[in-house]
Amino acid sequence: MQTTVNVSGMTCGHCVMSVTEELTGLEGVESVDVDLVAGGVSPVVVTSTRELSEDEIEKAVEEAGYSVA
Amino acid sequence: MQTTVNVSGMTCGHCVMSVTEELTGLEGVESVDVDLVAGGVSPVVVTSTRELSEDEIEKAVEEAGYSVA
Repeated sequence: MQTTVNVSGMTCGHCVMSVTEELTGLEGVESVDVDLVAGGVSPVVVTSTRELSEDEIEKAVEEAGYSVA
Repeated sequence: MQTTVNVSGMTCGHCVMSVTEELTGLEGVESVDVDLVAGGVSPVVVTSTRELSEDEIEKAVEEAGYSVA
């Protein structure tokens, strides 16, 4: 299943890597696809084997140092 | 001794870390101080025990994925 969140504050490939790493660490996450809009709001598609809660996604994004828009 | 170079293309703390790591890897480098101007030209002060050539600094910056302005 796929969940899309909008993440703000990412500016470069390193930021994308940080967010991807955190989200990939969630149980059941198979892949993370970030469409970087540098300095803006970037859609992030998370593919997982189970339903993810808004809350756990938001926590992971914040753990990486960014926020859900 | 201190050498200052202007580095362009850095946008976030991760970029600063990459450049700092590469420059710190040069022989004789004691510290690297980056004054990040996100998306602009950032002055980078390299403190070292020997004279550094423009060439080796530029190579290290490019190795990190950025360029000397």
